[in-house]
Amino acid sequence: MTLPGPLNPPSRLLMGPGPINADPRVLRAMSTPLVGQYDPFMTRSMNEVMELYRRVFVTGNRQTLLIDSTARGGIEAALVSVLEPGDKVLVPVMGRFGHLLVEIAQRCGAEVHTVEAPWGQVAPYELIADAMAKVQPKVLAVVHGDTSTTVVQPFDGLGELCDRYGTLLYADVTASIGGNEFLTDAWGVDIATGGLQKCLGGPSGSAPATFSARAEGIINARKSIEAGIRDEGDAVAAHPIRSNYFDMSMVFDYWSERRLNHHTEATTMLYAARESARIVLEEGLGAFQARHALHGRAMMEGVRGLGLEVFGDVEHKMTNVVGVVIPEGVHGEAVRTRMLEDFGIEIGTSFGPLAGKVWRIGTMGYNARQDAVLTTLAALEAVLRREGFGLPAGGGVDEAYRVYAEAA
Amino acid sequence: MTLPGPLNPPSRLLMGPGPINADPRVLRAMSTPLVGQYDPFMTRSMNEVMELYRRVFVTGNRQTLLIDSTARGGIEAALVSVLEPGDKVLVPVMGRFGHLLVEIAQRCGAEVHTVEAPWGQVAPYELIADAMAKVQPKVLAVVHGDTSTTVVQPFDGLGELCDRYGTLLYADVTASIGGNEFLTDAWGVDIATGGLQKCLGGPSGSAPATFSARAEGIINARKSIEAGIRDEGDAVAAHPIRSNYFDMSMVFDYWSERRLNHHTEATTMLYAARESARIVLEEGLGAFQARHALHGRAMMEGVRGLGLEVFGDVEHKMTNVVGVVIPEGVHGEAVRTRMLEDFGIEIGTSFGPLAGKVWRIGTMGYNARQDAVLTTLAALEAVLRREGFGLPAGGGVDEAYRVYAEAA
Repeated sequence: MTLPGPLNPPSRLLMGPGPINADPRVLRAMSTPLVGQYDPFMTRSMNEVMELYRRVFVTGNRQTLLIDSTARGGIEAALVSVLEPGDKVLVPVMGRFGHLLVEIAQRCGAEVHTVEAPWGQVAPYELIADAMAKVQPKVLAVVHGDTSTTVVQPFDGLGELCDRYGTLLYADVTASIGGNEFLTDAWGVDIATGGLQKCLGGPSGSAPATFSARAEGIINARKSIEAGIRDEGDAVAAHPIRSNYFDMSMVFDYWSERRLNHHTEATTMLYAARESARIVLEEGLGAFQARHALHGRAMMEGVRGLGLEVFGDVEHKMTNVVGVVIPEGVHGEAVRTRMLEDFGIEIGTSFGPLAGKVWRIGTMGYNARQDAVLTTLAALEAVLRREGFGLPAGGGVDEAYRVYAEAA
Repeated sequence: MTLPGPLNPPSRLLMGPGPINADPRVLRAMSTPLVGQYDPFMTRSMNEVMELYRRVFVTGNRQTLLIDSTARGGIEAALVSVLEPGDKVLVPVMGRFGHLLVEIAQRCGAEVHTVEAPWGQVAPYELIADAMAKVQPKVLAVVHGDTSTTVVQPFDGLGELCDRYGTLLYADVTASIGGNEFLTDAWGVDIATGGLQKCLGGPSGSAPATFSARAEGIINARKSIEAGIRDEGDAVAAHPIRSNYFDMSMVFDYWSERRLNHHTEATTMLYAARESARIVLEEGLGAFQARHALHGRAMMEGVRGLGLEVFGDVEHKMTNVVGVVIPEGVHGEAVRTRMLEDFGIEIGTSFGPLAGKVWRIGTMGYNARQDAVLTTLAALEAVLRREGFGLPAGGGVDEAYRVYAEAA
C-alpha cells in the first residue's frame, strides 16, 4: 500500500449546526510547540484557561476547566462524577440531546425520569416544576440549546426549583455557550459542560466545564486516589466514581496547585480552547452574543425571504442555528449534496422525527459573518431553483440585507 | 482583568518520558482547516487513519481506529467495553501503569487479580501462567512498555495462554507503540490502545486502538444504540456498557460505513494522528524502531559514560526511555530545574517507589535524534558539575559518539 498524501482538504464553508470552520487564529494556535506537562508555562496556561472560561461561563466557580474529550465526554464526566447507582435524575426531553442525557444517566446506573415536549418546542416551566415536586431528583439535567431542534430552553426559575429540593442543576451548553446568554451563577447552575466546535469556533475535542462549590463538594466526597500515586492519608472512597478518566475529583486535583497527575493534558486542545476564549472575550461576551443574534436573524429572515418556512418555536430560537422546513417535492439530501459539491457549502440534515424534513443552517463562531450568510442564501436559492423549486429571485439575500440595514 | 496574550511558549527540548516535542509536521497538520463530520474528505480520512494504524499495530483488524481522549481514556474504553461487573481480570503489576489498569478495571466492577514484580523488572512468564491457570480470567491486561520503570514486558507465550483459557489479551502500548516492536496479530493480542505523545511524536489527546474480531464480537454483543437515533430493529442490550462515550460498539458504528453518529470526531486530533502515522510509515516501521533503539542506546551509554547508574532491567529496557539512578548527594529536583531553566531541556522525575531516586530521560519520536541526545548529555554533565558532582569531562558525549560510530 502506498501512503496517503499530506492533508489537502477541499475548501468548505461549514454552515451546518457544527462543527463549523474553526477560527484561523485557533488553527494557528494549534501549531504552537508543546511544553512539558508540568512546565511553568503549562501550569500558567492551565490557570489562564480557568480564568478565561470563568468569564465565558459568567461564574466565580473555582472548578472551571477543560475535560479532555469531545463535548459528549464532558456530559458523561459531569453525570458520572455526581451520580451513584439508584440516584434520581430528571431530564426534560425536547430533542436529541435530551435523549442523550437520559442515556448517559442510565449508564451511570441512575433512576431516570423524564418530561417531554415536542421537538421544536421548549419544556414549559410548570411541567418541570410538577415533575420536580414528584421526583425530587438529585440532579435536574437540562439541555440549554439543542441544535437538533434549534431551540433554547429558558432557565428562569430552575435554580430556585433546585434549591427547594436540594437538587443539582446540570446544563449541557455544548451548542449554546458563547453565542447565547448563559449565566451560570445568576441562574443557579451547578454544573455546565460545553464544547469548542460550535459558537466558540474551535475544533471538537475539548469540553470546557464549570462546577459550583456544591457540586465540587459532592464530587470530592466520592474521591478515591488511584494506587500507584496514592500517598498515606489520601482518601479511598467507599463508592468511588465509576469512571477513572472522567472522575472529576481527580481532574480537579490535576488542575489544582497540587497538580496531582491524572491523564496527560491534551496540550494542543488546551491551546485551542485558550485561543477560542480569547477571541470571544476580546470582542466582549455581550458583543459576541449580539453578533450571533444579528447574523442568526439575518439568516432566518433570508430563509423566509426565499419563501421557506422556519422550523420550531422561533421565540425561543438559538441565535446560532435555524431550522428550515424542506419544502414539499424537494429532495433534501439532493440539495445538501449540490450545496456541498457545487458550492463548497455545508448545511445540516436532521435526526429522529425531523430526519428528511428539516435542514439546519448554522451561523456561529467564525462563521457568524455577513459574507457567510449572504453566500449561503445565494447558493441555496441557486440550488433550489435548479431543483425545480420556484422562489422569489434574490429574496433571501434581500431580506438578509434588510436585517443588516436595520441594525446598522 | 486584562486578557492573557497570544501563546508564546519558551523554547523547550522535551527529553522526559513524554509528552515530547511534537514533530513539526504534526503541528502543521493541526492547523489544517476543518471539514464537516460526514464530508467525503472526512470519512475518507477516517478510513485512511484506520489503514495507517493497521500498519502501525501490525494487524489486519478491521476495528483499528482512534478513541477521542488521551491514552488513559483509550484504556478505559477498551476495558469498560469488554468488562461486565464481576468479570475476572488478571493484571501483572510492575509499575505505575499496571496499578492504573487495576484501578480502571475495578471501576468497571471487575474482580481484579494481580501478580506483582518489582518496579524495574518484568513479570516472569511462569508467574503469569500460574495465575492464569488459577484465575482463568476474562481479560489478561498487560502494560507493554511502562515508562514509570522503563521496562518492556515480553509477550512471548501470552497469546497461547489466553487461547487456552478463552481469555482476551489486552495490551497498553501507550508508551511503546512505534518505537518498540509490537506485533498485534502475531502475538495474539486482542486489544491494544496507545497514545500519540510518546514515540508517535504527536500531542496527547487521541488514542489509537485496535480490536480483534473476537473482541469486536464480545463488545458488539453488548451493543445498545441510544434513543434519539435508534431505528426499529436496532439492538437494546440487557447489560449495556457502563459508559456511553467509551462504548466501543457505538464507536465502531461511527467508524463503519454506516457512520452512525456518536460523538463529533475530534478532527484536528485525527489530522495529528494521521500525520504521526505517515511519518512512522514513510520511514518504515522497522527503521523507525531501529532509530529508537540506536538513540536510546546512545543515551544509555552516555549516561553510563557520565559515571551514572542505569536503573532497572536493561535487558528489557524500552528503546525510548532510560532510568538514571540519582547519585548520592545530588538533589534530583535541583538538577531538573537547572536543566529546564538554564538549558531549556526537560528530563523526567519518577513516581511512587522511584520518586526522588530516578530520573527518566526519553529519546522518542521527533526527539530520537543525535543532536537531542548529545545536547542533553552535555547539559546534564554541566549541571551535575555545578551541583558539585564530580564526573569525567565529556564522558557522556564521548560514549554516545562511540555508539554512533559503531552503528555507522
